[in-house]
Amino acid sequence: MTSANEAEIGPNADLDEIKGLMRALPGPEEAAAEAARAREGRLTKPAGALGRLEALAEWAAAWQGRHPPRADRPRVAVFAANHGVTARGVSPYPPEVTAQMVANFQRGGAAVNQLCLTHDAELRVYEMALDHPTDDFTAGAAMGEADAATALAYGMTAVEEGIDLLCLGEMGIGNTTSAAALACALFGGEARDWTGPGTGVAGDALEAKIRVVAEGVALHKDAIADPFDALIRLGGLELAAIAGAVLAARMGRVPVILDGYACSVAASVLHAVDPSALDHCLVGHCSAEPGHRRLLQAIGKEPLLDLGMRLGEGSGAAVALGVVKSAIACHAGMATFEEAAVSDRADGPGSG
Amino acid sequence: MTSANEAEIGPNADLDEIKGLMRALPGPEEAAAEAARAREGRLTKPAGALGRLEALAEWAAAWQGRHPPRADRPRVAVFAANHGVTARGVSPYPPEVTAQMVANFQRGGAAVNQLCLTHDAELRVYEMALDHPTDDFTAGAAMGEADAATALAYGMTAVEEGIDLLCLGEMGIGNTTSAAALACALFGGEARDWTGPGTGVAGDALEAKIRVVAEGVALHKDAIADPFDALIRLGGLELAAIAGAVLAARMGRVPVILDGYACSVAASVLHAVDPSALDHCLVGHCSAEPGHRRLLQAIGKEPLLDLGMRLGEGSGAAVALGVVKSAIACHAGMATFEEAAVSDRADGPGSG
Repeated sequence: MTSANEAEIGPNADLDEIKGLMRALPGPEEAAAEAARAREGRLTKPAGALGRLEALAEWAAAWQGRHPPRADRPRVAVFAANHGVTARGVSPYPPEVTAQMVANFQRGGAAVNQLCLTHDAELRVYEMALDHPTDDFTAGAAMGEADAATALAYGMTAVEEGIDLLCLGEMGIGNTTSAAALACALFGGEARDWTGPGTGVAGDALEAKIRVVAEGVALHKDAIADPFDALIRLGGLELAAIAGAVLAARMGRVPVILDGYACSVAASVLHAVDPSALDHCLVGHCSAEPGHRRLLQAIGKEPLLDLGMRLGEGSGAAVALGVVKSAIACHAGMATFEEAAVSDRADGPGSG
Repeated sequence: MTSANEAEIGPNADLDEIKGLMRALPGPEEAAAEAARAREGRLTKPAGALGRLEALAEWAAAWQGRHPPRADRPRVAVFAANHGVTARGVSPYPPEVTAQMVANFQRGGAAVNQLCLTHDAELRVYEMALDHPTDDFTAGAAMGEADAATALAYGMTAVEEGIDLLCLGEMGIGNTTSAAALACALFGGEARDWTGPGTGVAGDALEAKIRVVAEGVALHKDAIADPFDALIRLGGLELAAIAGAVLAARMGRVPVILDGYACSVAASVLHAVDPSALDHCLVGHCSAEPGHRRLLQAIGKEPLLDLGMRLGEGSGAAVALGVVKSAIACHAGMATFEEAAVSDRADGPGSG
């Protein structure tokens, strides 16, 4: 695990440079995808019998740019930051819980620690200046452009040579409020459509949270220049970092597994710029946070799991990693009909 | 891995004795379930935030009869047998493929081998007299009562001391035909409702398969004395073994993860005798075989995964094992609020 290091953050990151990367996104490696499809048809099973596992293996090959795809060094990256909007009472937990949970990650006591152990994934926790929260977005922009650029660049450091899958997650008291406002600004609709219980507000407290989201969106809406500007005005440092990590993973040929609501909203900033920008991303699960299903429709993603989870911290992505590892293991390790001397169907594979 | 051993099969198994076990099924261990619920509320997450993972941990505790539950020695048991009804041309694959796939399991080349490696599960393959298929159930009973008793008893041997989770699966060319007839006899409806492509029949071949199922059910329907008799008349040796394994797991306090259509139909013989008989069983996934969803409604089970898989051989159960291990790891390994010095919500956990 690493913690924030000022030297790593890249204090001179330039937002225009980061935006420029969006104009040169690499596509899937078609040769690897084709090799995956060809091998899939020869493995000892009826054509299509592994269902979505087959599509996952092809996806991993296409976006790793190699065949067979690998799942030998998965990383779970969790970005943690604080939010000025917590001053508006949007969460039942105090903002100190962000730092307390980071300490819990570091001691191995959180859900994501157990999930990384279960699925042999490396956990990295990126602590982002927890004593310097963003500003309250109902009073002004959440952050400055330079802060956003630094956070995006910091997120990009989560993609390192040798990583073959990247699960992304977040921790930040108040960040479902920020995510709701950002989603509303990016995809339209009402604040109510995007705002849910988060860690557990209900009744009057939920109504108050909806009003805070609506206020923030109303304050900034007409001034938002582009999706990155929406992130600056309504987002958070960890959300910016996740967007940066998704972008760096695309450049570095590392397929991504996104977690729940806040994580997916962060990634969807890139989708709002270019709808193909998340083609290398899988959404690991559908969160119980109600805005997540709406968001997944907006960005055209079918989640892998639907287990009613709503914890964040990369937990849903880490559970989904077990399925992705299963898919890659079957694809890479199964015998072909020829190797196993198993009779193929009389009318040939896939013909019925 | 083991292969069939006449000494293990228990040639003197008595069907009445096995049926007698159904009258004394142990229930869940309420103290363990209560301990799981109590601990769950103190773990460092908002109440309920792990969704279905929390229910899985409680289920495992209740049916293992201990707290915390464990997932240290999961076993995947695959039963393989042949079916006389293949003479009716119900499968696109020849019956020799059953033995060829058993050899593939033994050499490590099948999907279930890769999945067991991925999720650290022990694989046992139980080969059931592959050169002695059941009889064609459209001409008479598939097996005799003594064969059924032997197969049930053989299945029971899959539950051994020290196993903490049991995933069940099957391999048998023709067995979705047998499963469809058995499900139709147990739960009513038309042959068409329960008959699907299996390994891949479509069009005229699927219509012919539906007619075979209908013929078999029509031949036996009025004579079926009880659900075990339906199994004898329309089932298969591997299906009987799975029913035996499910029953032995209940007696031995081992929670079970069922696989797809044929496996779930086999287990549902016990449900037809006593609707509480599968309370210790989780259905790992919903198969793409269309009858599976109907069956799950009939037995009141919500599958864990829905990935369009339809391979059998325990593959869906083995993928689901990764989720169950995740749930047990989170429950057993996470820190409590007190241990981690994380502030709980001001209004107490679970109150909103």
